[in-house]
Amino acid sequence: MKNGAVQIGLVGCGVVGNGVVRILQKNLELLEAKAGTKLHLAWVASRRKKPLPPIGGIRPLFTKNWRDVVADPDVDIIVELIGGEEPAKTVILSALKAGKQVATANKAVLARHWEEIFTTAQATRGLVYFEAAVGGGIPVVQGLNEGLAANRIQRLYGIVNGTTNYILTRMSEEGLRFSAALKAAQVAGFAEADPSFDIDGVDAAHKLAILASLATGGWVKVEDVHREGLTNLDLWDIKFARRRLGLVAKSLALADFNGDEVYARVHTTLIPENHPFATVRNEYNAAVIHGDAVGDVMFYGKGAGAMPSASAVVSDVMYLARQVAGGMAGRLPYVMFDGKRKLKILEPKNKQLRHYLRFSAADRTGILAAVTQLISKHDISISSVHQEDNTLTESDVVKKFVPIVIVTHEAPEGAVQAAIKESRRIRGLSRSPVHLRIESLG
Amino acid sequence: MKNGAVQIGLVGCGVVGNGVVRILQKNLELLEAKAGTKLHLAWVASRRKKPLPPIGGIRPLFTKNWRDVVADPDVDIIVELIGGEEPAKTVILSALKAGKQVATANKAVLARHWEEIFTTAQATRGLVYFEAAVGGGIPVVQGLNEGLAANRIQRLYGIVNGTTNYILTRMSEEGLRFSAALKAAQVAGFAEADPSFDIDGVDAAHKLAILASLATGGWVKVEDVHREGLTNLDLWDIKFARRRLGLVAKSLALADFNGDEVYARVHTTLIPENHPFATVRNEYNAAVIHGDAVGDVMFYGKGAGAMPSASAVVSDVMYLARQVAGGMAGRLPYVMFDGKRKLKILEPKNKQLRHYLRFSAADRTGILAAVTQLISKHDISISSVHQEDNTLTESDVVKKFVPIVIVTHEAPEGAVQAAIKESRRIRGLSRSPVHLRIESLG
Repeated sequence: MKNGAVQIGLVGCGVVGNGVVRILQKNLELLEAKAGTKLHLAWVASRRKKPLPPIGGIRPLFTKNWRDVVADPDVDIIVELIGGEEPAKTVILSALKAGKQVATANKAVLARHWEEIFTTAQATRGLVYFEAAVGGGIPVVQGLNEGLAANRIQRLYGIVNGTTNYILTRMSEEGLRFSAALKAAQVAGFAEADPSFDIDGVDAAHKLAILASLATGGWVKVEDVHREGLTNLDLWDIKFARRRLGLVAKSLALADFNGDEVYARVHTTLIPENHPFATVRNEYNAAVIHGDAVGDVMFYGKGAGAMPSASAVVSDVMYLARQVAGGMAGRLPYVMFDGKRKLKILEPKNKQLRHYLRFSAADRTGILAAVTQLISKHDISISSVHQEDNTLTESDVVKKFVPIVIVTHEAPEGAVQAAIKESRRIRGLSRSPVHLRIESLG
Repeated sequence: MKNGAVQIGLVGCGVVGNGVVRILQKNLELLEAKAGTKLHLAWVASRRKKPLPPIGGIRPLFTKNWRDVVADPDVDIIVELIGGEEPAKTVILSALKAGKQVATANKAVLARHWEEIFTTAQATRGLVYFEAAVGGGIPVVQGLNEGLAANRIQRLYGIVNGTTNYILTRMSEEGLRFSAALKAAQVAGFAEADPSFDIDGVDAAHKLAILASLATGGWVKVEDVHREGLTNLDLWDIKFARRRLGLVAKSLALADFNGDEVYARVHTTLIPENHPFATVRNEYNAAVIHGDAVGDVMFYGKGAGAMPSASAVVSDVMYLARQVAGGMAGRLPYVMFDGKRKLKILEPKNKQLRHYLRFSAADRTGILAAVTQLISKHDISISSVHQEDNTLTESDVVKKFVPIVIVTHEAPEGAVQAAIKESRRIRGLSRSPVHLRIESLG
């Protein structure tokens, strides 16, 4: 506090940081009324010099070195928006150790260093708020952490990556191939030049690890999330699933909780077309939290973009500012992390799920029988078999294939993987089948 | 605080109160871990003697007189679940004046006495939490009040009454008439024996007044909400709107904000069938908050029932308990009510909306021309006219009628009301038309 105002230091001023500055410029009076205190953007640290307008009549100091901001004893709240692991992690830990409060949008640092960050926060009696780290502007972190606090969380799932959802939407609705849809996402600004972080499910795994850690009070690590990327997804399967099975392909992050047991995974999942998630399009995100008392609660909104994410960051800054101004910051922790809480991470192997398998036969004679025999041999109960007359061309070969789709009843993942592996020995199949999970989300 | 535990007094132990007791019994250890303090249900006040099991090894005291609970100096938190205006209002105010914190699910008391309650809370430095008052278990109150705090709220709307949504769902999906759907709602436990409070939109108006007051920082009174009930809703229009216009009928509570101007209303509204609200069925609730930074954020879940509402109440109790245990309760107000904030409540008259009008002609000859002339005379631009060959029987008459549906472009409510009034003079029309508003909710 200085001159009766809570002093804010912004570290990192890219897309979201600019959004934060814009909200402060536009709504400062309203924000101060709601927060019950004056707010003063004291510092902006950024690699590149920014032309910064005065906010509330005061122009923030500028530096290229974030240490200047953390070293200023007047600064109460550090807003970390650098992204990536370093120096972001050091910024957060240094800020806490300097007795400051932190707001961050950094899912990678949180997911990978949950224990260190929240142990440090407990030790320094500091607060780390991170609403923007999951679901952009949607207040799902607070909803899970506080609004549904009375509940034992039994399951949570979400569409938490805008890039993959954008790609799947364009494929599903417009029949774009994966590569064209990815290019469209890049043109629309929803995918990075190197999109692997999103496409491979790493970003979604970070977000799921954060939500699952909040839900359990322990630490679900990124490595604990069974993760499969979006690559090699075929347009044919998306179309077939929608038209013939009434199922929509979504990249889903899902965690089940049962006592100390956690089963967390990110992969392409077929969900019923009448589920609300089927209408979550493009860059929108959604999350469902299932609590033992409340049942399903869904949150939905823009999961990406400067202003939605900045909305979450500034809301965090406002709670922090209220607590700083009231002299109460850090008296109560925000995250109930219990370092002694041991979680048992389940292997996918034994998990019972429904599966979609699409085999590609060079020639159908005898192959259908061979495939169904193989499935049965692994004790997997078949729900339906679809032989399609239409042919398809695998992306990497010229030859035409006949698709054979097998939809299973609930079967252990391990048995299905074994069957897939063994299917490579069947002559006349092009390669491993396309393998998607099916969730009724009932 | 007594014996290191936060002391809770439950006043009113009906459906939701029983849910609260059940959650405390089931999850006490988890709740205490999350709240960071022991919780002790010290009292239950109820008109009828309840057999109460011990919770955490301690059996709560029982009384038929709520004053016993408020008079106990050890009680920290009063949970008011009586419902209705009195004595609930007196319970809340007495609890605040006795220096206690309050959690309540009582939308009627809050909506009707917002100013008195939050002025008293500010004076006594008490907190009143009320997540269960709107949207049952959905944390929309907190989301609006805190999670989206950085935003200037420009619009909010919701399906906030489970009874009317249940009735409309059964009518729309199963072709039940209004009276049959209402009976079904009563059998399913989603409508009271006297359903007028829900059917007439009073319950929804209470909830909208609460959300609008939170959004503005002022007080939007129940009387400020333009309200129309669900009565006289015809199955024919629901079917026609869905099949021919791609619109779904929902009882919508909606408020628009522009500076100090507020326009709030509750009535049956036709919305696009691809809007997420179209999939909000039966007793489910949903709300969309539109903030200037975040855009649309939607919350969805069970809006009624013992356990969802109790989830919200117990979550409120947990925040309160954390603050009590930390010695910080009331240091910061929960609701930013500003008694000096003057709002300008807009009259519906000048509001531009799209309208659906269904006239019933005893005989079509000349009537279509008369109706369209009348509409044009009032400067209302017509989007489409539908003459249907099928006939319909008005509920109160035996004669058959030919429906004439007029869908307008945006037109002032006042002009449409004037046209409706004048239409009574056209001979051969059965009565006033069915009048519904259309919202694209884009």
